[in-house]
Amino acid sequence: MAVSGAPASGEDALIARYFKPLATDPGAFGLSDDAAVLKALGEDIVVTTDALVEGVHFFADDPAYTIAQKALRVNLSDLAAKGADPAGFVLSVALRKVDEAWLSDFARGLGADAIAFNCPLLGGDTVSTPGPLMVSITAFGRVGPGQMVHRSGAKPGDHVVVTGTIGDAALGLDILKRGRVADALAGDAASRDALVGRYRVPQPRNALAPLIRAHAHAAMDVSDGLAGDLAKLCAVSGVSAVIDLKSIPLSNAAGKALSAGAAGMREIVSGGDDYEVLCTVDPGALDEFIQAARLAAVVVSPIGTVIAGQSAPKWLDVEGKELPLTRTSYSHF
Amino acid sequence: MAVSGAPASGEDALIARYFKPLATDPGAFGLSDDAAVLKALGEDIVVTTDALVEGVHFFADDPAYTIAQKALRVNLSDLAAKGADPAGFVLSVALRKVDEAWLSDFARGLGADAIAFNCPLLGGDTVSTPGPLMVSITAFGRVGPGQMVHRSGAKPGDHVVVTGTIGDAALGLDILKRGRVADALAGDAASRDALVGRYRVPQPRNALAPLIRAHAHAAMDVSDGLAGDLAKLCAVSGVSAVIDLKSIPLSNAAGKALSAGAAGMREIVSGGDDYEVLCTVDPGALDEFIQAARLAAVVVSPIGTVIAGQSAPKWLDVEGKELPLTRTSYSHF
Repeated sequence: MAVSGAPASGEDALIARYFKPLATDPGAFGLSDDAAVLKALGEDIVVTTDALVEGVHFFADDPAYTIAQKALRVNLSDLAAKGADPAGFVLSVALRKVDEAWLSDFARGLGADAIAFNCPLLGGDTVSTPGPLMVSITAFGRVGPGQMVHRSGAKPGDHVVVTGTIGDAALGLDILKRGRVADALAGDAASRDALVGRYRVPQPRNALAPLIRAHAHAAMDVSDGLAGDLAKLCAVSGVSAVIDLKSIPLSNAAGKALSAGAAGMREIVSGGDDYEVLCTVDPGALDEFIQAARLAAVVVSPIGTVIAGQSAPKWLDVEGKELPLTRTSYSHF
Repeated sequence: MAVSGAPASGEDALIARYFKPLATDPGAFGLSDDAAVLKALGEDIVVTTDALVEGVHFFADDPAYTIAQKALRVNLSDLAAKGADPAGFVLSVALRKVDEAWLSDFARGLGADAIAFNCPLLGGDTVSTPGPLMVSITAFGRVGPGQMVHRSGAKPGDHVVVTGTIGDAALGLDILKRGRVADALAGDAASRDALVGRYRVPQPRNALAPLIRAHAHAAMDVSDGLAGDLAKLCAVSGVSAVIDLKSIPLSNAAGKALSAGAAGMREIVSGGDDYEVLCTVDPGALDEFIQAARLAAVVVSPIGTVIAGQSAPKWLDVEGKELPLTRTSYSHF
């Protein structure tokens, strides 16, 4: 992505108008070059990439502003879970046509979040496609050498902890698909909006990155469903876990959908798009982690315990009965 | 992109089978985590991103092996022009379906080039799409602090220099579209293959990166057409240029197409997909640059001179007559 000073092509004009104003970092060179520079004074650069496809990760009629936010935030969520401080991102966007109103909204959403999360646009590529719109972002973070928090590292005895609330985005998706949750909350616009908002605009927990670095033995972000993601974390760490279903933090809106019987805990823990942090914390550090997170205005909730073993994590109800999970997470294929 | 040790989803299995073997760099963590780590001991990390869309940047029936090569090489070409040594890349790929034979070929092409260019796979994202296949790569390079070579920096008196030969890929594309070049070279399979090969598999000039750092005042890669790209470089540098059309290096196959009247210099200098380096070099350094490039097995050719002024570069034929260019480069919109 580069703005030329030469007679502007359509692509160059588009980049100059919508994306150049976002490229405030000196390493972006005002998008006037072929590449960006990320300075590093001995820190590790943490790199993550996530792509969103229209009709798969968002709806064609979702607001362009929130599509941009989601595209950046799913990447910011990875950085948060790895304990990395945002350093910037590059963007590839494939467009069917140039819709100035859409692009203007998209750039505003992207710009607002770049500022909010201190993660500037460094560069990108704008291409045409005959197919669905696609946004691919690669984001960069910084940590001290060797300080990235891994999926591996969970130890028997650790508390399993999640940030925020779980399941909202999956219920929001059900509403957008006019499913059972939409019916159950038909008279409750505020709850519907809250859940749809969680699907469209993840709330990545970057404020917690320093605490995750300091306190988590293992961490990942919950993107494909809590149950599947915990199973992955445990498998890579060579441990298992027991989860207490009633400890899983639910929003008020999710609570209403459950009370109405429109969804069960199975959907809550296997739905995707939470973009919360799942981590394991030493018992001796739990109180400090919870208190410090509260100061950062993020609720964190212990939901179970890491145990030795290779079996899949167990999800227990109040009576100690196991919730059978056949499908634990989203897979594209 | 992460391989889980948990019961494999389709996506995880696909990543484990095809992409994990490529993730040989310690910073990729065997694709078992949510992010990669790029170590930097004070160097600048140069970042570039380019996306390819089926039907736009390559044909649906192009070999998967060469699609992968092109996707990586268009990024490697940017690193070469910036004087950066490859450090690794992340990949986003959007697939309509899982075609094991296609994926196997794609991964083989990617893996071969990752080794050939010393640019390991660090991570990625694999998603489904209902539309055209899309491959988006973000590549990283290293240079000493402040050593990236910019588009700006060209000085009056500099030689304008290009690597390799110009126009081949555009002629190759014409052949794939069964245009006039295909007819003109109907009896010459070797020439057709050479030109199509240049369209499908760029030859990025990474071997020259140290020389470009050492000798070029300004550089960029030629991706959208030499004429348009030179105009961009000149505009950003605040200079103009005079180019001698007969000095533009042509391959034997391109020479045949021109002799047959199937294409003219206008198509040669405004066609895209060359992925050669365009740079400007101080007159005092030209001989050393040419000699050193020869040792690196790359032919570099001076094609003109940077002059003061703001006007568009002039393209002069043997009689000193200017070649009028209405369309100087490819634009997506």
